[in-house]
Amino acid sequence: MNAPMLNYADAPTQYLDVEGVNYAYRSLGKRSGIPVVCLQHFTGTLDNWDPIIINGLAKERPVIAIDNTGIGNSGGTTPDNVQDMARDAIKIITALGIKKCDVLGYSLGGFIAQTIATTKSDLFRKIILVGTAPQGAKALGSFPHLVERAFQQRGIEVYLYIFATQSERSRKLVTATYQRLKERKSDRDKETGMLSVQAQVKALTRWGTDPVTIKLGEIHQPVMIVQGSNDEMMDSDTSLELFKQIPNALLFYYPDSAHGSFFQYPEIFVEQANFFLNHFE
Amino acid sequence: MNAPMLNYADAPTQYLDVEGVNYAYRSLGKRSGIPVVCLQHFTGTLDNWDPIIINGLAKERPVIAIDNTGIGNSGGTTPDNVQDMARDAIKIITALGIKKCDVLGYSLGGFIAQTIATTKSDLFRKIILVGTAPQGAKALGSFPHLVERAFQQRGIEVYLYIFATQSERSRKLVTATYQRLKERKSDRDKETGMLSVQAQVKALTRWGTDPVTIKLGEIHQPVMIVQGSNDEMMDSDTSLELFKQIPNALLFYYPDSAHGSFFQYPEIFVEQANFFLNHFE
Repeated sequence: MNAPMLNYADAPTQYLDVEGVNYAYRSLGKRSGIPVVCLQHFTGTLDNWDPIIINGLAKERPVIAIDNTGIGNSGGTTPDNVQDMARDAIKIITALGIKKCDVLGYSLGGFIAQTIATTKSDLFRKIILVGTAPQGAKALGSFPHLVERAFQQRGIEVYLYIFATQSERSRKLVTATYQRLKERKSDRDKETGMLSVQAQVKALTRWGTDPVTIKLGEIHQPVMIVQGSNDEMMDSDTSLELFKQIPNALLFYYPDSAHGSFFQYPEIFVEQANFFLNHFE
Repeated sequence: MNAPMLNYADAPTQYLDVEGVNYAYRSLGKRSGIPVVCLQHFTGTLDNWDPIIINGLAKERPVIAIDNTGIGNSGGTTPDNVQDMARDAIKIITALGIKKCDVLGYSLGGFIAQTIATTKSDLFRKIILVGTAPQGAKALGSFPHLVERAFQQRGIEVYLYIFATQSERSRKLVTATYQRLKERKSDRDKETGMLSVQAQVKALTRWGTDPVTIKLGEIHQPVMIVQGSNDEMMDSDTSLELFKQIPNALLFYYPDSAHGSFFQYPEIFVEQANFFLNHFE
């Protein structure tokens, strides 16, 4: 038996056919234990996970990152609503042979994780939500304008506009994350196409404006919520709302950070996430 | 050289004369490194620190717990305001030969830590604030009524009224803390006398009602803030205010917990505090 793969940069992209759609994923980490499935942010692909975070989690458990429908190297058409994205994520996780897993849902991935937790609640053992918001979060109503302003920037500034604050420290730390995302040289994902981006914008906006249907009070799993001090996209204060509504949640705020909170402080996140997944009940 | 003392139950009470007042303290843990000085909550003495927390910190650093003026086995008259309590704490720390330390300020001890951080800012390297609030926190205005209701309870219920929520889980976990506080059989502190309790009630109430003089924005150290979801004494939401005003703060909320947040989850607190003190800048 080979040694477990512990370096995300070396994890090959694998493919899985689900009902005629070809899905891309990467798998690494310990061979035994409950896997943590990683659900990515708006526009993000398999190449947008900070390797410090994936590698840190992989030391203690299996880690599986997936591209949802129409994202990165996955086929199919990206849905324009979170409910259908959650349906697709369940299909992929099930097709991978997983009956129970932990989940790391980041931003849009956190919406999907909340949706699955309240519609197929036996799939998850524990839930990590980063840089996300409850349904009805007002900030999402103006998401298209935020995206428009971000896309007016150039190069790395598009990334920093969303993921960093304007402080020197935050920009420096998130620039380092951005550079880590470029370390993988081959077998990279395609960038997410414009039609998929547009569908995601619609889904994110709807999360803020559609009627609230999700009952967070019914989430029975242990939940760990992480947010930055200044996440304009989600409005940082809405993480306190998540915390208050979910019965058994830890809430961790990181300083001087925006939507990229855990990318800015990957070491502390890995420490907290591994402790949560290993020990918190 | 003897092995380091790592068990708080075995740490003898020591005494130190400062300007004619006899102060009680206990010291344990690693012999080298920056010590963490522990400042206790309303009515609490050296016997009110959860040994899991003290022992967990002592594995990685020197730990020194002190009784402030008029508390437990310390002599002198307890001041009725936080400013004088901070002045006394500085005197004790200085008399112990400490030029720079970390601080764990719990509740009233957190008020003292905030005061020292903004008046003698070079004393602290890093700051942990648990179950505390900024100056002007409205909940403190009704502190005497809360104390009155708590003191109407009997036995362990006095403790649970303040430190636990009404849930079965919280009561069970905080009951376990309460029992750990009784493990030490000899060399215990005197309980804090009624005159000192009255002075502390005045100081706590004033913290909520006096004009705000402390500039939290000037705290330049890394700060870790911990709070429970339902701390009626401090109003849990005021920890988010601390977080927003202190430039470089981590904020951790624990679920289904009241004023005894870190006593309810001592293992996760020890993990987070040691990581913060060892690694966070």
